[in-house]
Amino acid sequence: MKIIIPTSSLSDALRKVLTVGSTRSPIPVLNNVLLQAKDNRLSLSTTDMDVSITTDVNVVVERNGETTLPAKKFGQIVGTLPNGDVTLDTNPELITTITCKNAMFKVSGLSPSDFPRRPEVDGDQKFVFDKIELLKTLRKIGYAVSTDQTRVVLNGILLSVRGGNITAVATDGRRLALVEKITDGSVQLADGDVILPTKVVHELQKLLDGDGQVTVKISSSFSQFNTGDTTITSKLIDGTYPNYRQVIPSSFKNSVVLPREAFFEVLNRVSIVVSESGSAIRFVLKEDSVTLSASTAEIGESEESLPVSYQGEPVNISFNPAFLKEPLKNLDCDEFTLRFNDEFKPVVLLGDQGFLYVIMPMRN
Amino acid sequence: MKIIIPTSSLSDALRKVLTVGSTRSPIPVLNNVLLQAKDNRLSLSTTDMDVSITTDVNVVVERNGETTLPAKKFGQIVGTLPNGDVTLDTNPELITTITCKNAMFKVSGLSPSDFPRRPEVDGDQKFVFDKIELLKTLRKIGYAVSTDQTRVVLNGILLSVRGGNITAVATDGRRLALVEKITDGSVQLADGDVILPTKVVHELQKLLDGDGQVTVKISSSFSQFNTGDTTITSKLIDGTYPNYRQVIPSSFKNSVVLPREAFFEVLNRVSIVVSESGSAIRFVLKEDSVTLSASTAEIGESEESLPVSYQGEPVNISFNPAFLKEPLKNLDCDEFTLRFNDEFKPVVLLGDQGFLYVIMPMRN
Repeated sequence: MKIIIPTSSLSDALRKVLTVGSTRSPIPVLNNVLLQAKDNRLSLSTTDMDVSITTDVNVVVERNGETTLPAKKFGQIVGTLPNGDVTLDTNPELITTITCKNAMFKVSGLSPSDFPRRPEVDGDQKFVFDKIELLKTLRKIGYAVSTDQTRVVLNGILLSVRGGNITAVATDGRRLALVEKITDGSVQLADGDVILPTKVVHELQKLLDGDGQVTVKISSSFSQFNTGDTTITSKLIDGTYPNYRQVIPSSFKNSVVLPREAFFEVLNRVSIVVSESGSAIRFVLKEDSVTLSASTAEIGESEESLPVSYQGEPVNISFNPAFLKEPLKNLDCDEFTLRFNDEFKPVVLLGDQGFLYVIMPMRN
Repeated sequence: MKIIIPTSSLSDALRKVLTVGSTRSPIPVLNNVLLQAKDNRLSLSTTDMDVSITTDVNVVVERNGETTLPAKKFGQIVGTLPNGDVTLDTNPELITTITCKNAMFKVSGLSPSDFPRRPEVDGDQKFVFDKIELLKTLRKIGYAVSTDQTRVVLNGILLSVRGGNITAVATDGRRLALVEKITDGSVQLADGDVILPTKVVHELQKLLDGDGQVTVKISSSFSQFNTGDTTITSKLIDGTYPNYRQVIPSSFKNSVVLPREAFFEVLNRVSIVVSESGSAIRFVLKEDSVTLSASTAEIGESEESLPVSYQGEPVNISFNPAFLKEPLKNLDCDEFTLRFNDEFKPVVLLGDQGFLYVIMPMRN
């Protein structure tokens, strides 16, 4: 393989793939980036066996071929190269000579034939998202994904297709976040559920940087996300997601509309007192005001009120403050709605179009 | 104690003192900040017993008094308060009520009588530095301070007064950095040496942010640095600093002038190959060029040359690349000079006015 590529193009391409893969995998080739040069395109790929990422870039190919290079070290080298043209020239012993102006490196690779190839995803399900919309959806629910390794099906985001609409769901058993109708329903989709692992959700958030569209293909075991130059392929989580619909209360006794940013600020202040103890904050809603308060023996107490317009019966509920902060931080709406039954029943938070959040109160 | 202070003034003052002190000291009061209100001044102090820092700020004092508050928690509370006037009102049970607009906190303190008072420093030695100059001096040599706990006298910066001039020195036994004549000699100073612990050097670097002067007082066991509002007091390191003058070669066979930034860039690139192995880089100086190169079995090799003007005999020396990078990164000069005898003898690096650096070559 012999190619010539501007430093900035190589650097940009590498940055896209260097977040997947490892630097300390016991399988040495997984610490490497696969380079494949053909027809004036260079493909760079990394994988950790669960998630694979490939990006393509235009280059001058003087000799087709492929090799692998230690990913982290190669990234460091490219990061220090001056602006100019970089030549990568790999000999039959898999030693790649990297030159750029006066700088010269010789780096040993591992056989590209040992590098795991990404699975072909010939899915029946195929849909197109606006990148920004998908990114916002992932941010609005991503924090609610469970990290409990004993409940593997909850360690990811559910994409559920019903009647042509897709709902994205995350829950850790104590709160649930979802966004309904994340496509406009114009594409014909078969009913079905897939669970995307957290790891690919994190990678996707980097991929979705900027404008444009992302094409998603789903097969029985894999999902694939493509934005033109870059493709992420990931295993799906195997298993059946719990029936999240049954967690959502069907009716409510009371409801209040609150200003998102002002309420978030108050919540943030009041909860400082309990931030290390994991204690609850109290939410007291009366006619014309909502009061948040908290206390711990070690630090002391806090209290702050906000004026609201409310005519229902008084509400006195305790929450884990983090569970209230996370949705409020990630929504865009000016106002959000809380719906209650009593202090033991699930509370629902509504905000941006299609967003719904269910939170269990804490017992004091 | 009852005071009223704008949020931003309290926040600025707290930020100055919250870097000293601890959050997990076994002596509870050391985790707290001492607040003393008197004559429309609020003093805030923290200490870890070795280093103390106090800053004063103008406030409205409605009732003189003092208390202590948990430093980290108080900082978090103030950090979230809205802009406005903050009232701190401490009752006889040492509970401080903090109010600002609608926000209210009650925080328990510890007795201010348990808070260690900073020692009076009535030093014979007193001098005034320009803040920026002192900051630059500390940066130019600070990286060379030893972290070897078995050589306590090297765990700080030596300030050595001889004939009215002050020299600042740091060494870890493998390299030595010094700046001579860091004052202009206009102040009458008695000969003498003091060793400032690393910890106070770090605190000083924050204190020296911005223009102005810093007044330094030295007693037999303490140093004190004052910038007007803020005072840092520190124990000195007890012991005799080694005779650093004998490490500096008195004559050299060869000498070369190199461009600082261009050489640093080349050094940075070439040393990537050895950055995790601790291996040396080779420095080969010939007529018209200097070549840096490195190699390890795991990664491979690197090499890059720079044109230079040099007429002496060829030089071939190995260095720890980090020991060359650190001074070059912290100097301001466009060009620096290296002076050699042979590949086993100490090399001297000269750059900014008064700066001198001695580095031992590595053996290959």
